[in-house]
Amino acid sequence: MSFLPLSEKIVAMRNPSVIGLDPMPDYVPAGLLAEYPDVCDAIFAFNRGIIDAAADIAPAVKPQAAFYERLGLPGYICLLKTIAYAASAGMFVILDAKRGDIGSTAKAYADAYLSPRQPLPEKKPDIDISSALSYVDSLTVNGYLGSDGVLPFLDAAKASDKAVFVLAKTSNPSSGELQDRDIMGRPLYRLMGEMIDGWGADSIGSDGYSACGAVIGATYPRQLADMRKALPHTFFLIPGYGAQGGGASDAAPGFDEKGGGAVVNSSRGIMLSYRKKPELDWKDAVREAVIAMRDDLRAALA
Amino acid sequence: MSFLPLSEKIVAMRNPSVIGLDPMPDYVPAGLLAEYPDVCDAIFAFNRGIIDAAADIAPAVKPQAAFYERLGLPGYICLLKTIAYAASAGMFVILDAKRGDIGSTAKAYADAYLSPRQPLPEKKPDIDISSALSYVDSLTVNGYLGSDGVLPFLDAAKASDKAVFVLAKTSNPSSGELQDRDIMGRPLYRLMGEMIDGWGADSIGSDGYSACGAVIGATYPRQLADMRKALPHTFFLIPGYGAQGGGASDAAPGFDEKGGGAVVNSSRGIMLSYRKKPELDWKDAVREAVIAMRDDLRAALA
Repeated sequence: MSFLPLSEKIVAMRNPSVIGLDPMPDYVPAGLLAEYPDVCDAIFAFNRGIIDAAADIAPAVKPQAAFYERLGLPGYICLLKTIAYAASAGMFVILDAKRGDIGSTAKAYADAYLSPRQPLPEKKPDIDISSALSYVDSLTVNGYLGSDGVLPFLDAAKASDKAVFVLAKTSNPSSGELQDRDIMGRPLYRLMGEMIDGWGADSIGSDGYSACGAVIGATYPRQLADMRKALPHTFFLIPGYGAQGGGASDAAPGFDEKGGGAVVNSSRGIMLSYRKKPELDWKDAVREAVIAMRDDLRAALA
Repeated sequence: MSFLPLSEKIVAMRNPSVIGLDPMPDYVPAGLLAEYPDVCDAIFAFNRGIIDAAADIAPAVKPQAAFYERLGLPGYICLLKTIAYAASAGMFVILDAKRGDIGSTAKAYADAYLSPRQPLPEKKPDIDISSALSYVDSLTVNGYLGSDGVLPFLDAAKASDKAVFVLAKTSNPSSGELQDRDIMGRPLYRLMGEMIDGWGADSIGSDGYSACGAVIGATYPRQLADMRKALPHTFFLIPGYGAQGGGASDAAPGFDEKGGGAVVNSSRGIMLSYRKKPELDWKDAVREAVIAMRDDLRAALA
């Protein structure tokens, strides 16, 4: 079922890392900006280098749709190329788009991002993007609208052997304004967790996890531990590691006793790692950062 | 300020309608599908016809991003063309994308959809889309993440003389699963309303409304009345009229005593109106439906 390909990669690589691809134009190494006059070409070359550096070490990438949408049509094409390239490199692709709507509209989003996979193209710089959206393995979803806003996504995901991550307790400082509010004796994010658990109940795979995952920030380790205990069949996507202040020990409570059931995302910590090691080629610096994150998580989960 | 251009159009046209552009390929009249072999070209021709039929009667359009995203790259281009064409026709453009994220990511979405307007292109079928996203006048936003997830959008909107609509009480049957939950004596959607009121407090324009609007479904008229009373400075976007079951009398409680402060959206009721009048040219049928909706709302607000 759904998260099984990711669970298997995590076990094989002994690494529950996700490489976040959230590129601002000024994140791109100067050499690439010089080589590619078009900023979206430069960003794609940057993403390609990161994917090449990480694909044998980390199981998954998470492109953040906003950073591509802000660049308009060329940015959208860059997102499609990035998804196709990462999939062709064998990585599990989580599209972080936080979509959420109802009925036929939710179905339309699900058609876009959770439809059956088409055959993968050859991995090369001028990669074929005609089926790129079909390579998305998992989509982030906002559950504020209730079941009508989640089930069309989840149904499509189950039909395509894919998965969704629903926002529960987000990593940002103000997440508590709504998510920590008390509802009949437990915080709202716990209620959302119970809803996620219910939505996923009929899709539990051989790895023990359903197709309906949850997003819970590493910046809230106590809540992460609480949710891990309450939701034994819910796979977690844990943002907030690195630049947002969460460490491996903060993310660790989100894992099960076998070190499974969760992935930890780092975006700026990987993408900007080359700035801290100007003596290295930027790809080598990125590779070192990917390895360091893996080792950091391994140590925290040992 | 922000909603003022929309408020002024509503007064001038005596019409608080929004024409929803949520095109499924099978919504497009057969003649257009025959004329345009590419489905996205056919959809754009359909949207163009609807805009031409409605632009002197209705003040605003609301393209729903999902229906374009589901068609991949050609769909995205069709969305850009539709936004540019509607803006060039003088309509207020509400992009219904329900974006929501935090910090630099929310800022990236805001850069995409709430950046300063560029000069409008000439209104014609091969319209220039290079600045299309800048013509978005208002964006729908999901506030589940709290202030960090809304203020970057609102700040960008205020800087560009634009506006946002934050989801409060959505029109779908299951919206109450989360939104009706009791939080310290009032339902969650009311709490969200209070947050929206606070976010908008420093951007109240000469029409009496702030740049931070709220989405509240016509399918919940009692809640709409309650919110109108509680939030005198919050402009409402009211979906759920027509195909979702809400009537003009259900939407009416969302308006102020002058008939301002709200817009009502109809998508399928307008787009599919031609099917009910096969004796008419489809554009004439759409125009009649736009006029009928205006008159229905005028009567309910009289």
